[in-house]
Amino acid sequence: MADGRYRIPRDGQNDHSNEQAEIRRDFLQQQTGATLKYTGEYTIDPGVLPGNIENFIGIVQMPVGVAGPLDINGEHAQGRFYVPLATTEGTLVASYSRGMRVINECGGVKTTVVEQFMQRAPAFIFGDAREARDFGNWLEANMEGIRQAAESTTSIGKLQHLEQWSVSRLRYVRFNYTTGDAAGQNMVGKATLAACEWIKRHYPGDCEYLLSGNMDTDKKHSHLNMLHSRGKRVVAEITLDKDIMRKMMKVETTVMARSSVLANMGAMLAGAAYNGPHSANGIASLFIATGQDEANVVESHAGLLSHELLPNGDLYLSVTLPSLIVATYGGGTGLPTQRECLELLGCYGKGKANKFAEIVAATVLAGDISLACAVIAGHWVSSHDKLGRNRD
Amino acid sequence: MADGRYRIPRDGQNDHSNEQAEIRRDFLQQQTGATLKYTGEYTIDPGVLPGNIENFIGIVQMPVGVAGPLDINGEHAQGRFYVPLATTEGTLVASYSRGMRVINECGGVKTTVVEQFMQRAPAFIFGDAREARDFGNWLEANMEGIRQAAESTTSIGKLQHLEQWSVSRLRYVRFNYTTGDAAGQNMVGKATLAACEWIKRHYPGDCEYLLSGNMDTDKKHSHLNMLHSRGKRVVAEITLDKDIMRKMMKVETTVMARSSVLANMGAMLAGAAYNGPHSANGIASLFIATGQDEANVVESHAGLLSHELLPNGDLYLSVTLPSLIVATYGGGTGLPTQRECLELLGCYGKGKANKFAEIVAATVLAGDISLACAVIAGHWVSSHDKLGRNRD
Amino acid sequence: MADGRYRIPRDGQNDHSNEQAEIRRDFLQQQTGATLKYTGEYTIDPGVLPGNIENFIGIVQMPVGVAGPLDINGEHAQGRFYVPLATTEGTLVASYSRGMRVINECGGVKTTVVEQFMQRAPAFIFGDAREARDFGNWLEANMEGIRQAAESTTSIGKLQHLEQWSVSRLRYVRFNYTTGDAAGQNMVGKATLAACEWIKRHYPGDCEYLLSGNMDTDKKHSHLNMLHSRGKRVVAEITLDKDIMRKMMKVETTVMARSSVLANMGAMLAGAAYNGPHSANGIASLFIATGQDEANVVESHAGLLSHELLPNGDLYLSVTLPSLIVATYGGGTGLPTQRECLELLGCYGKGKANKFAEIVAATVLAGDISLACAVIAGHWVSSHDKLGRNRD
Amino acid sequence: MADGRYRIPRDGQNDHSNEQAEIRRDFLQQQTGATLKYTGEYTIDPGVLPGNIENFIGIVQMPVGVAGPLDINGEHAQGRFYVPLATTEGTLVASYSRGMRVINECGGVKTTVVEQFMQRAPAFIFGDAREARDFGNWLEANMEGIRQAAESTTSIGKLQHLEQWSVSRLRYVRFNYTTGDAAGQNMVGKATLAACEWIKRHYPGDCEYLLSGNMDTDKKHSHLNMLHSRGKRVVAEITLDKDIMRKMMKVETTVMARSSVLANMGAMLAGAAYNGPHSANGIASLFIATGQDEANVVESHAGLLSHELLPNGDLYLSVTLPSLIVATYGGGTGLPTQRECLELLGCYGKGKANKFAEIVAATVLAGDISLACAVIAGHWVSSHDKLGRNRD
Repeated sequence: MADGRYRIPRDGQNDHSNEQAEIRRDFLQQQTGATLKYTGEYTIDPGVLPGNIENFIGIVQMPVGVAGPLDINGEHAQGRFYVPLATTEGTLVASYSRGMRVINECGGVKTTVVEQFMQRAPAFIFGDAREARDFGNWLEANMEGIRQAAESTTSIGKLQHLEQWSVSRLRYVRFNYTTGDAAGQNMVGKATLAACEWIKRHYPGDCEYLLSGNMDTDKKHSHLNMLHSRGKRVVAEITLDKDIMRKMMKVETTVMARSSVLANMGAMLAGAAYNGPHSANGIASLFIATGQDEANVVESHAGLLSHELLPNGDLYLSVTLPSLIVATYGGGTGLPTQRECLELLGCYGKGKANKFAEIVAATVLAGDISLACAVIAGHWVSSHDKLGRNRD
Repeated sequence: MADGRYRIPRDGQNDHSNEQAEIRRDFLQQQTGATLKYTGEYTIDPGVLPGNIENFIGIVQMPVGVAGPLDINGEHAQGRFYVPLATTEGTLVASYSRGMRVINECGGVKTTVVEQFMQRAPAFIFGDAREARDFGNWLEANMEGIRQAAESTTSIGKLQHLEQWSVSRLRYVRFNYTTGDAAGQNMVGKATLAACEWIKRHYPGDCEYLLSGNMDTDKKHSHLNMLHSRGKRVVAEITLDKDIMRKMMKVETTVMARSSVLANMGAMLAGAAYNGPHSANGIASLFIATGQDEANVVESHAGLLSHELLPNGDLYLSVTLPSLIVATYGGGTGLPTQRECLELLGCYGKGKANKFAEIVAATVLAGDISLACAVIAGHWVSSHDKLGRNRD
Repeated sequence: MADGRYRIPRDGQNDHSNEQAEIRRDFLQQQTGATLKYTGEYTIDPGVLPGNIENFIGIVQMPVGVAGPLDINGEHAQGRFYVPLATTEGTLVASYSRGMRVINECGGVKTTVVEQFMQRAPAFIFGDAREARDFGNWLEANMEGIRQAAESTTSIGKLQHLEQWSVSRLRYVRFNYTTGDAAGQNMVGKATLAACEWIKRHYPGDCEYLLSGNMDTDKKHSHLNMLHSRGKRVVAEITLDKDIMRKMMKVETTVMARSSVLANMGAMLAGAAYNGPHSANGIASLFIATGQDEANVVESHAGLLSHELLPNGDLYLSVTLPSLIVATYGGGTGLPTQRECLELLGCYGKGKANKFAEIVAATVLAGDISLACAVIAGHWVSSHDKLGRNRD
Repeated sequence: MADGRYRIPRDGQNDHSNEQAEIRRDFLQQQTGATLKYTGEYTIDPGVLPGNIENFIGIVQMPVGVAGPLDINGEHAQGRFYVPLATTEGTLVASYSRGMRVINECGGVKTTVVEQFMQRAPAFIFGDAREARDFGNWLEANMEGIRQAAESTTSIGKLQHLEQWSVSRLRYVRFNYTTGDAAGQNMVGKATLAACEWIKRHYPGDCEYLLSGNMDTDKKHSHLNMLHSRGKRVVAEITLDKDIMRKMMKVETTVMARSSVLANMGAMLAGAAYNGPHSANGIASLFIATGQDEANVVESHAGLLSHELLPNGDLYLSVTLPSLIVATYGGGTGLPTQRECLELLGCYGKGKANKFAEIVAATVLAGDISLACAVIAGHWVSSHDKLGRNRD
């Protein structure tokens, strides 16, 4: 068994204090010989951290650049935005900014939140497939009790509907909630646990379950989430003026359309989660800047980039992100720097999640326009050479 | 066109200085009314940042906790490790630590790097499918010239082999390189551009191409990357002792095996990129702590969790990450706090990428054991209530 | 333009007669030099064919073998069945028979039809994503009118519910019907056309649509059909007695369980539509024998094979076919030989489709048990050598 | 145990005779009460059947219609073809014929076989992931011995290369062969068994394997087969003249292009194996007419339909079938009627498989053009009403 000597020091009452962090850094330096000088030179008050971290040892400092302005005509986000991106990848901020400039010239991006859900999906196990099927029917007939049990655990989460799948003698049940302006994974976990316990008490037969049977699908991309939104389903649209594109990006819209077909075929052949250039870059850096759960990039980056060359030669372009998971309060959004980045967008606090989701989708569209044009115009590699750190 | 008033201020020579960051923060506060106080209170020297960011405005501070120790029997990582995780999701560090404790009790995790490649995949367009096919044959016959052209741009990158796919009159060609201890996306972009230009000059027919046709597939999950590794293919293995599991985790290995089958079915039905509980959590937080390109979480989180209940009741468990993209120098790894976190693992600098990859895979395995047991034992929701910020 | 000389002869009134078939065979022999002797030596009355074929030239004769008996404990199929399989692949009938024998020894297979739908999925195109979303809400609010319009075209088809997806400025709408004992593709096409025309007349905005936008997904496998059944979702279950397996199949159930894990991993890595050995063989040959639409094998062969090694060493095994498309009247089911094969199963005519679906699923399970054991026991290749035509 | 009374009668020496078939039909009629009159009224000599069927009871008679002529400019198929389609789906033959007429008007279809392989993919199991990886290296170093062992079992099959994948402590190895004009599944099974036994004898460590680990992937669609051809990878191409399309099909090429984008998005969202209208219809009916293994429709129907609207308004269209599995001798191709249908295409016997593959791809393209136009022009449903059997 691990010797006590190797245990990371803890202090029940005072575990997030500067002192305790320093004790741990000293311990780690002693164990490993590595120094943790800069990691200890943070400026935020660790008193804000309980609920966000355990075994706190310090702070990692990640640079933030700002892209924009970006003109958005959303239902929730309206006006001119400066988008904070936390990244260490050179050229990323510059490239997104370039896409935003051409978007503004073309009249701004239109954004729409289509739907939103958060899920927990237990799996119920029965003696045979018939019981599993009949259990599904029982669930539908007992929605009222299930809903009350689920919603008794939360003042915000609302159980909207169940989706059910039979496989073998299993019944996978995906509980779909709305969760206000929180991402809501924990909220729906708690609510679904309560619902499952209610079901267990009331279902006339035996009823064994696992609280997650991987049909949620939490913290991983899935085709299911492409179809049935986990988080928000958001669309950003623009019509790119052919003259502006030629002048600002040195790219013909006809060539861009042709390249898109080719990229679509590649994405289909590859079985890719996204058929555009790089949704994950914008999402990851915006997520880190604003205190989102960074692991949700994997669900959020999936999507479909759609194009249509219009009769006048302009190019309609849209990005659909089916499972964008964002929050504007709770989690990391309240940490000092992250909160400021949300406030920069006017997105901190309750009632702002849809607005923030629209900004994310608009940012992704900007980045994809920029990178698509760079690949076509041939200066993709050279700009990385100029702006990016020479890595070779 | 965007009025000059709205333009983010720039300063060619001095763009990453504290002064310039402050000018930008002032500008943003003027434009938006939001304050950026904490974002400006960073302690690192922005002189390190050129190559990592543009339009620098300050620093986001992300808390780091440490999980471990974790005993690893790798080919590159050997011994006891303390793993820094940057996250704002409460319970994450505690949960990974819990998994590490049980791993240590069971004798540590065995890790293996199976293979490693980085790719750029141009698409070539021809008059018809026959030309596309014949071009593919020409490429194979001219590998020597292609390799020389590609490798002329880099002292590290080595072109290993091409994979080719014909669709319609297109030929997608995936150039596979080894890239030393860099992630290598830019390195292989540059090399492939040189190769393509060489091809264009020497191919006897017409030869139009796009430097990426989405078969790379960069910054997105794809089934292709599950099959053909982008980054490193790493396996972490353990045999969980049934008595230790019962004692420490309150879980029977037989139940764990049964639950795994159920979770596998769910993942197959969902079309999930990973069939285990939550690879993305550990990868994302370790990536942020150590200055990895955070968008690569989307490629890296894919994988297969495999189990086998042994005749003696112990449970063999392994995680395979087919496309883990990591670097131990270049990019964000050299920033002060990130570098310290890499050094804490003994992983900073050249020659350390395989070691770091093994640690990541071992960490993922620890987190999956912990969460799987929590779901089975029923304290998943309650631990989030206790350690996580109450969000509801 | 094709010269008249090359046109296949037609005869409006008499197009399916023996005479007209002979005229066409003569024409083809003249054009190509090939003889069509045997193709003309059929014994059925072509008078039954209108509605099944155009440009009728004769009959292809496919051998039928019978597998069984097979004991089924279904809700619709109960008792002992002899299963007609039309195939030219040697060993197929023998192998399915072998699986059926072991199933009978283990007490027979339990079958369950879980749900059933048939779909047509038009795509509606709008000016922007908001209109597309709002149109979706309008549809939900106008279900009554839509249902009446759809059901006005059919006495059997019942519109059950709509599924909707927004992508870009498109709205894909999947109309789910029950279709009695017909497969129902044409029935729902007609009904959905009527519904769409009703929508077009009543929707207050502009409303352009394509009757199929590939979300049906007709005549191709899709992950969507794995999740949301097209046709019937059927489960067949059995518990394989370890002693019987050892005696009859020379296979240990523990080895079979272990092999299943390995085959599951392979299927996940391959991105396969089915994780068992060979659902398509049984389905295709039973479909041809009974006059099913043979192209529906592609939707029908998808599925999940699930196993669990029980504490006593027996092996629970089940096959779930999510999109099994079958009919017991209409289409080819009424042709003389095909009808007889359906009657052999007691499955011809209305009210028999669920029974037939259960038999198909039970047959698939039998074939998978047999082939899985053959691969494990090592006599897979040798039995093909013995029973199959020597092809090399 | 199944009572002897229920056993299907067998006769070792004489099992495929008319007498034995009659004995079985009598037995079945006695057991089930169903008559098998028409099934016994076949005209072919069952003496040809050994190797194709067991428990022979008679013949199912499937109508054949002929579509065409179809002008093909292939490398192997050149000239004018009349395509036999065995189906019971009304309108199918008429629809394919319609597509062929417009193809001919536009100058015929160009076809290309890009590559071809047949596979068997054993899975090897080791003590840990390192052994599995090292075993893979050993295989590469011992290709000569492996090849000799494999090819010792066949005069036709040639082992081309191995593809390997590590997952957990497993090594999946896909043996890729060329198999002449046979589909070759049995040939490669036998060869791979010999190779595996050679490996087992020569590999210095322990070496357990399963002859198929589902990475072949035999008799099921898989994304792997989309990427790495199982069977032949064939492309059929055409440029559709906008005036001819308008005149013959009442469809604007611009509308067709727009509809294709919409259908592509639908297919991506659905996770479909094919993004065109209905490859499976043509393939299934051509396969049955010509004695192909009918279960291979599931692998063969996968593909990509690609379009490009040219500057002059014409529409370039191509279909790529990555895993088309066909044979021109062996299996069912030698049965009297099936052989005639192959001969009608000039495709019976050795040296004809590529020609036949080109005809299949050309036929698929014809059917997709026809159905796409019918959906757009709105007469899809009405033609089914007119030509198809009224099923409702």
